[in-house]
This record gives sequence, C-alpha cells and structure tokens, in this order.
Amino acid sequence: MIFITRRERFNAAHRLFRIEYSDEQNLQVFGKCSNPLWHGHNYELFVTVKGEVNPETGFLVDLKVLSALINDRIIEKLDHRNINLEVDFMAGRLASTENISIGIWNELEEEVRKLGAELHCVKLYETENNYVEYYGNAQR
Amino acid sequence: MIFITRRERFNAAHRLFRIEYSDEQNLQVFGKCSNPLWHGHNYELFVTVKGEVNPETGFLVDLKVLSALINDRIIEKLDHRNINLEVDFMAGRLASTENISIGIWNELEEEVRKLGAELHCVKLYETENNYVEYYGNAQR
Amino acid sequence: MIFITRRERFNAAHRLFRIEYSDEQNLQVFGKCSNPLWHGHNYELFVTVKGEVNPETGFLVDLKVLSALINDRIIEKLDHRNINLEVDFMAGRLASTENISIGIWNELEEEVRKLGAELHCVKLYETENNYVEYYGNAQR
Amino acid sequence: MIFITRRERFNAAHRLFRIEYSDEQNLQVFGKCSNPLWHGHNYELFVTVKGEVNPETGFLVDLKVLSALINDRIIEKLDHRNINLEVDFMAGRLASTENISIGIWNELEEEVRKLGAELHCVKLYETENNYVEYYGNAQR
Amino acid sequence: MIFITRRERFNAAHRLFRIEYSDEQNLQVFGKCSNPLWHGHNYELFVTVKGEVNPETGFLVDLKVLSALINDRIIEKLDHRNINLEVDFMAGRLASTENISIGIWNELEEEVRKLGAELHCVKLYETENNYVEYYGNAQR
Amino acid sequence: MIFITRRERFNAAHRLFRIEYSDEQNLQVFGKCSNPLWHGHNYELFVTVKGEVNPETGFLVDLKVLSALINDRIIEKLDHRNINLEVDFMAGRLASTENISIGIWNELEEEVRKLGAELHCVKLYETENNYVEYYGNAQR
Repeated sequence: MIFITRRERFNAAHRLFRIEYSDEQNLQVFGKCSNPLWHGHNYELFVTVKGEVNPETGFLVDLKVLSALINDRIIEKLDHRNINLEVDFMAGRLASTENISIGIWNELEEEVRKLGAELHCVKLYETENNYVEYYGNAQR
Repeated sequence: MIFITRRERFNAAHRLFRIEYSDEQNLQVFGKCSNPLWHGHNYELFVTVKGEVNPETGFLVDLKVLSALINDRIIEKLDHRNINLEVDFMAGRLASTENISIGIWNELEEEVRKLGAELHCVKLYETENNYVEYYGNAQR
Repeated sequence: MIFITRRERFNAAHRLFRIEYSDEQNLQVFGKCSNPLWHGHNYELFVTVKGEVNPETGFLVDLKVLSALINDRIIEKLDHRNINLEVDFMAGRLASTENISIGIWNELEEEVRKLGAELHCVKLYETENNYVEYYGNAQR
Repeated sequence: MIFITRRERFNAAHRLFRIEYSDEQNLQVFGKCSNPLWHGHNYELFVTVKGEVNPETGFLVDLKVLSALINDRIIEKLDHRNINLEVDFMAGRLASTENISIGIWNELEEEVRKLGAELHCVKLYETENNYVEYYGNAQR
Repeated sequence: MIFITRRERFNAAHRLFRIEYSDEQNLQVFGKCSNPLWHGHNYELFVTVKGEVNPETGFLVDLKVLSALINDRIIEKLDHRNINLEVDFMAGRLASTENISIGIWNELEEEVRKLGAELHCVKLYETENNYVEYYGNAQR
Repeated sequence: MIFITRRERFNAAHRLFRIEYSDEQNLQVFGKCSNPLWHGHNYELFVTVKGEVNPETGFLVDLKVLSALINDRIIEKLDHRNINLEVDFMAGRLASTENISIGIWNELEEEVRKLGAELHCVKLYETENNYVEYYGNAQR
C-alpha cells in the first residue's frame, strides 16, 4: 500500500451566510466572512490516493491522469467561480472549507476507483493558516 | 540607507471588466477573470520602506507602527472585501494587480513619510505565479 | 468526522541541558543546542482538531475561537519568551521540541473539548528541517 | 508515542522507461519522463520516525544522528547521481517516486531500529505538486 | 513604470564540465556537478517585464500571453530535457545557472518587446539555496 | 554583469534594549523584543554578489566557496549563539535586524572582493513577515 498526492489550485469567491439569518446575525456568526458582496481565496487542494504499485509502470496511478481527473471534475467547476452561486455540487450547502472538502471528496471518490486506486484524503487550504482534511466515512 | 519590508495579507473578491464592454468582449479581453459573479484571491502584500537607521533604537522604523499603518490604511479596506465595489481608492479603476499596487502606493506614500522613512516599493502577489512591483514615479 | 488545522507562530529562546551535567557533558549530549547563553527559533505550530461538521454553521469549530484559544493558552506564554525560564507548563522539563509539543497538547486537550471538538495532533516545527507530531496517548 | 521528522534534499537525474519497450511505447506510457537523454529533479525527502521520548535527553532520537544516518545511507547514494544507473538499491527497478520511496524505506528500516526508534513514514516530493508517502507493510 | 513577474518551472538534467578537461580536472573544478552520468534540478524561473499600464485593460501585459511566450520559447525547450545535449540556445555553452539565465534572456528580450513591454530581469533558482539574476547589459 | 545569491540560515537568541534605559523604558520602546530573558529567531540570510561570468567555468563565483565563506565568517559566529553577548561584530551595537545586516555586510565586503566578485546585497529575514536589505553605502 502506497499513497500519492497531487496538488492543484483554484481561485474563487464565496461568502458564509444563512439565507434565513439577517445580515446582523450572519455577521455575528460568520464575521467578516459573511460580507454580502463576497470575498475570495487562492485555494490549494491536495488529493491523496492509495493502492498498490503497478509493477509494469512503477506507478500507483499515472499522475497526468489523476491531474486531468481533478481538473475536469473539480478545478473546472471552482476556478474563477463563485462557490455559492456557480458550483453544482455546492448548491444549497454552506460554502465552508469543511463542506467544500466533503463536496470534492464526493465528486472524486468513484472516479478515483475507476483509475484502480482508492481516494484517501482531500486536504484543502483556504489560507496559509487554515486547512481541512477529510478522509470520507472511514476513521483515519 | 537601508530597506525594510513588511508582509501583510488580505483575502478579497474582484473581477476584471469594462462596463462599456459586452460580457463577450470582457471574456475575450479578460478571460475567466471577467466572471460577472466574481472570483477572489489571497493577496500577499510586501511594503518596502527606506531610510537611515535611528542610532537610538537601531530601527529604520518601528515595525509595529509600520504594520499598524498598513493595516489601518490598506488591509482594513481590502480584507474580506469586494475590490470593485467596496474600496474607496479603487473606485472607477480596473481592479488589476497593477492598479491595486498603484492604489496602495498612493495611500501609503505620505503616511510613510510621517514615520521618517520613504516608501520604496509596493509588491503584490495575486497568486504564487504572479506579482507586481511598483516603485512610484521614480525609476528603479 | 473531519479535521481542521490552525497554524500559529511564536519566537522564543531556549537551551537543551541537564542541570546536573557539566557544561562539557551538556555539549557532548546536546551539542550547540546546549549553549549556556541561549539560542532561539521561530517555531511554527499546527493544531489539528477533529469532530463533526455543525450543520447550522458548516464549521467543525469557529477558527477565530480556535485561534483565540491557542493564542491565550500557548502563544501568549511562549512568544518572545525564554522557554526554560518563563513557561509554566515547561517548568522542570527539558525544552526539546518533543517536550514542548507534549506540553502544548496537555494545555489544549481539555480546552478543545469545551469547543465541541477533539484535539487530534500538535505539530511543531523547530526549523524548516525538523518537526515533531504528537497525537496524545492514542495510537495514530 | 511521538513522531519526529527530518527533511533532507537531493538533486538527481532519472528517466522512466522499460528496456523492452520501444521509444514510442515508452513515450506513450511514461510521457516526457521517458526522455532517453534524462531529466532531473530537486527531490525533498521527509523521514518520520516514532517511539518514546528518552527522559534523560528529552529526545526521541538525536536529530544529528538521524540526519547523519539519512545522509550516509540515502543522500550520499542519490545526490548528484543518475538514479537509474548509479544507485545500488534502485538497480533493476523503475525509477518512479513510488519505487524510490520504497527503496529508501528498505534502506532505513533496520538502521532506524538501531537508533531505538521505528521508521514510520518516508515522504518524497518530486515536484511541488507531487509527493509519495510509504508506511512500510503496516496499514496506516 | 511598473514591473510584473511571471513564475514558470522546468525539470531538467545537466552536468558542468569542460570537454577538454579530464574527469579528474572536471571533478576538481565543478565538484559533484561534473558527474558524467548527469544529475538534475527543478528549476524555478521568474521573468520580470516592465512598462506602462495600458489604461484600457489595467494591464502592463496580458499574463496569459506572457506565460504562453515563456512556455513556447523556454519551457518547451528545457522541461524534461538534458540542458547540455538538447537545448538549442545552450549549445556549446557551459550549463551553469548563470549561462542558462543569460540564454533565457537572449531568447526573450525581443519577444517581450513585441508585447509592448521591456524585459527587466531573468531570475533562475537552481535550488532553494541558490539563484541567479540577470538584467541584460543594463546596469541594475 | 550578473548577480548570484546564496541562502544560509542561523538560529540565535537576542533582545532589543538600551542599557541606560529602565526595563519599563525598554518595554515602551522595544516592546516584547526587550524581554530581559531573551527570545530568538530562525534567521534566513541571502547574500547576493555581482560581477562577470568566468568564461572558463561559467561561474560568477564557485558557490561552494561562497557558501564556505559565509559559513566561516557569519554562520559560525551567529548560529546557536546569543547575538548580544557572543558575536564580535555586534559588540556594543543594538541587535536589530538592521544592525545585524550592516554587520554582516562589513564582515563580507572585503572577503567577497577576494573571490573576484563584489558584494551587492545582504538580505536578512527575521520572521516570514519582516526582512531587511542592505546594499552598503552605494545607492541601490
């Protein structure tokens, strides 16, 4: 069993809020992240997959294929987008780093399996000071 | 003559567009940066000031004072904001990294002088792959 | 179950030594880290907590609250301090990165629980080339 | 149980190919990494060991000793070398990041045990966008 | 006058040697960098151009165009290549970071002018510890 | 004319204070940096030298020689030391980043000339958020 990680990046706008809250309530709960006129981030995404090394290639997965998959399914949807308004898998969900990470996991889990590997971890940096890791339903 | 640099950061939304262009024209000129629903960045700002070392303190300027100045005049206005809609010194200007850098310079130049130093450079990273440097009207 | 990590930093002086050793013995065991006149580091601290996402906020914990907790309990005590002489939770303990990490864990474990999460990992960089991870008594 | 990690670096040339493949086949499977005239990388290696803190020293292991071990057994063999042609523990193996990581693990596992610790993880960056982690035969 | 910088990366093999030297002489002058079986690096390239901001676009140059230029003229020729054997503009030149930087400058200088800007600096990292800056014939 | 930069690092303790000030005055002027029990940093030093490329070697200077010079003259004196108490070239001087940079310049200027190059810049990071650049008496 070996683990390989690919880093990709996307730049997106979002805000944290609940539609049923007043602006004041949103400010109280979500602070400046609730700004109704949006703010944004350079997100850094690390996707880790696991499995056995293919003795023919020396690879767990072909990183070009893994990178293309992440770009097709995730980066295309998020990069230079408004996460609250434009991303299908985030519709109706709070655009927190936690929820984006879970959303990315759900988009990738089956697709990684088709590559002959298993998704192990989605790690998402919102800033240099904060990141979320999600390992699916499995206990780490 | 010595140079000291302070790094500060802000997370903001913006878009690149001209109001007199159609969406199509904006897309052609500004690419995905013209997304009408915004995108955003973790901007990294490096402010360099120059002058003589104060023999009493060993400092060119007190970095706490310089940092407070940058925060009061720049970060407060830009962090978790929409650069196109909410930043006074960017009103009516294209929200490019070039123009944001020039705007920051104009906000800081006089204030730095009051600290007994001279503003030397505003360096602004939009992503890990792009940054702008502005040295005012002086030739570098 | 999801994991969120907050980075904080502190700059501190320390030395590695045993009071019952001679200077020569300390030098032999601890090398230049035993310098009786101290040296210091820019420590980088990563605190990882785990738990369930709150569906109301989309958060595991409010990062402002987590950051404030780490600052109140850890950074205030360590930043611009002498770890051997001034830090209550390090009194009588060798100021190694291993022991500082364990000390930080012990300071935070109960406090994180009060936030509705569980402390998962304390990761502490002493230099860009060395870091320690401590997961409490649990096996990783 | 505590974990300590040491970073070391090496700069090496390699190529990915199978000798029984034609150049065309190698290009198809391994892409530009199959260039018969080689290419190279600045590899970054993170070696994590685990065990108990020695109460006499406050250390899990002496990092100078761990660093010397990694340099003697790994860096000396790989740095400024051709991984395909000059590295004993890679002879006859595809020079993928996966296989280099496993090779490094096998070189270090017994040696780390002699230091009174246990090898936990070999993490190897090939570029800023890709890294492999190997934890031996144990499940993570 | 404003300055904008674009970062690009390439992974390449090279060696430092003079063909008229013996292996021993090469080793004496160039150290382990003279390894006849090659070694390699992840090079990081920063290209800085200068000029006036276009009031229509807010840009000095369109970064997509600048990036495409650097990729077409430089990265395509260097990435996953052997610098000594495969790079036209390095033919017959010692493959030092100094000479690669000058070679890149010569490839780009005229092309940047066609974009309506002026090449200001080529900065090339060979490792995290070493980089070269070249400003053309102009004094900095 | 070309510029080459070498990065070196040192970990040291220091404090900012004037002996003729009371502790209260020192606290007022220097803040927590005046802690009488010291604090410390991981300093990052970038030394830039300039000159012509030697056509025989393709080098401006041999980086191994430059690195050895910086280590002999600077790192040996500063690393794991107390800057206020143990560094000859800082005796009687406030241990600010500005003054350390000037001190390093003075130590290196003549020695770099003996290598056939000219010292261009001493750049010293105290933290990830602050650095000083000194170019000697010459205007930048």
